[in-house]
Amino acid sequence: MPDQTTTIAELRQAVNAFVDARDWRPFHNAKDLAVSIAIEAAELLEEFQWHDAAQVAEASADPDARERARQELADILIYCLSLSNALGIDISDAIRDKLVLSGQKYPAEAYRGRSRKPGERGRD
Amino acid sequence: MPDQTTTIAELRQAVNAFVDARDWRPFHNAKDLAVSIAIEAAELLEEFQWHDAAQVAEASADPDARERARQELADILIYCLSLSNALGIDISDAIRDKLVLSGQKYPAEAYRGRSRKPGERGRD
Amino acid sequence: MPDQTTTIAELRQAVNAFVDARDWRPFHNAKDLAVSIAIEAAELLEEFQWHDAAQVAEASADPDARERARQELADILIYCLSLSNALGIDISDAIRDKLVLSGQKYPAEAYRGRSRKPGERGRD
Amino acid sequence: MPDQTTTIAELRQAVNAFVDARDWRPFHNAKDLAVSIAIEAAELLEEFQWHDAAQVAEASADPDARERARQELADILIYCLSLSNALGIDISDAIRDKLVLSGQKYPAEAYRGRSRKPGERGRD
Repeated sequence: MPDQTTTIAELRQAVNAFVDARDWRPFHNAKDLAVSIAIEAAELLEEFQWHDAAQVAEASADPDARERARQELADILIYCLSLSNALGIDISDAIRDKLVLSGQKYPAEAYRGRSRKPGERGRD
Repeated sequence: MPDQTTTIAELRQAVNAFVDARDWRPFHNAKDLAVSIAIEAAELLEEFQWHDAAQVAEASADPDARERARQELADILIYCLSLSNALGIDISDAIRDKLVLSGQKYPAEAYRGRSRKPGERGRD
Repeated sequence: MPDQTTTIAELRQAVNAFVDARDWRPFHNAKDLAVSIAIEAAELLEEFQWHDAAQVAEASADPDARERARQELADILIYCLSLSNALGIDISDAIRDKLVLSGQKYPAEAYRGRSRKPGERGRD
Repeated sequence: MPDQTTTIAELRQAVNAFVDARDWRPFHNAKDLAVSIAIEAAELLEEFQWHDAAQVAEASADPDARERARQELADILIYCLSLSNALGIDISDAIRDKLVLSGQKYPAEAYRGRSRKPGERGRD
């Protein structure tokens, strides 16, 4: 699987080349990229709109539905990589740091198998 | 920079270990993960709510605002990695395939320096 | 119930007075209001994050969860009313027109009791 | 203007009739309605994607762009009305209560003409 050997930097460079070939960098401020991430996230969500648990499982196994979800996920990630490029954020560092913070907030013992409820927590 | 040497698979495994340590896999269906991505995307967007262009540039240079944006971006990515784990999507493949498709839809010559308008296009 | 006698115009005026008392009209361009609607929509959604069908029903009957959802719904609506004020959109007209269009797109006979699937439709 | 004479209850009933004619009430749980509001909010936002301040002003004056925004706003509101029907929330009450709360949080004197920054506030 390509994920085994592809580095984050390689994907960031691929996105960067795409953006530069179109001179889109001037559009890539943090706010407009955040707007675009939110728009693409909603398009992914639309794939599962009105689905009950059984339909979600069915869609997750259906080749066409999976392919649409895969493309929407790619759109979100491409804008996330663009934002990391625009702001100079190291993604590997950011994810590892956040996992440490989340691990302190949700210790494994206390949250094992427990869904969190809005009333008992702050924001992620 | 860690992004130079970190593979996608390593980050996927880090997220996977975090989820497994809490037995959260049963919650990680595609719909709820898409919901979570959308929620985190809105939290990132909130960092730039009401900001005009100058304020976006200012926030992008401010250490505290950057750190908040970095953490929100990490949250989005962690759920994206969780979704790729849940659905078995190779992220590197998905991004490269989508860049090819987007390259056909937005040829560099035709879209150089041009912001796309809703009226003249379909969905990404 | 106040909804029986309150007109849309009265609510639009209440929101308008709130905005004017703070001189917030200069911030109320269509894009930033759309951003704010999306942020508040995600906060409403967060009330049901990770909930399965039984938990959604439970939250819908729980006074505290209902009150939080009621406040988030109000936030969304306040920004929607602000947008109608900013753009001069008559909400009653817009909703009635859209119900006619949606009625043509989803005829009652063809869509009775049927959840729509992403693959078989365009956008709402 | 219809908004001058149309009550909230009339719009809630119009939406209710639309839903009942299609037997869609079983789909109208709070979570799926919140998902739908978020999806429609993103579609409204998409109308202004990548727009700078001048382009937002231009779109706000353009008949076609306004009509698209009007329809997306209607979609959001229709789902908001559906949610108020599903949960039995009086919208007029909810909005007035929230304006009082927001008025305490953002006193007119302290917040006149001031955009709020993420770092200095909690959630709306």
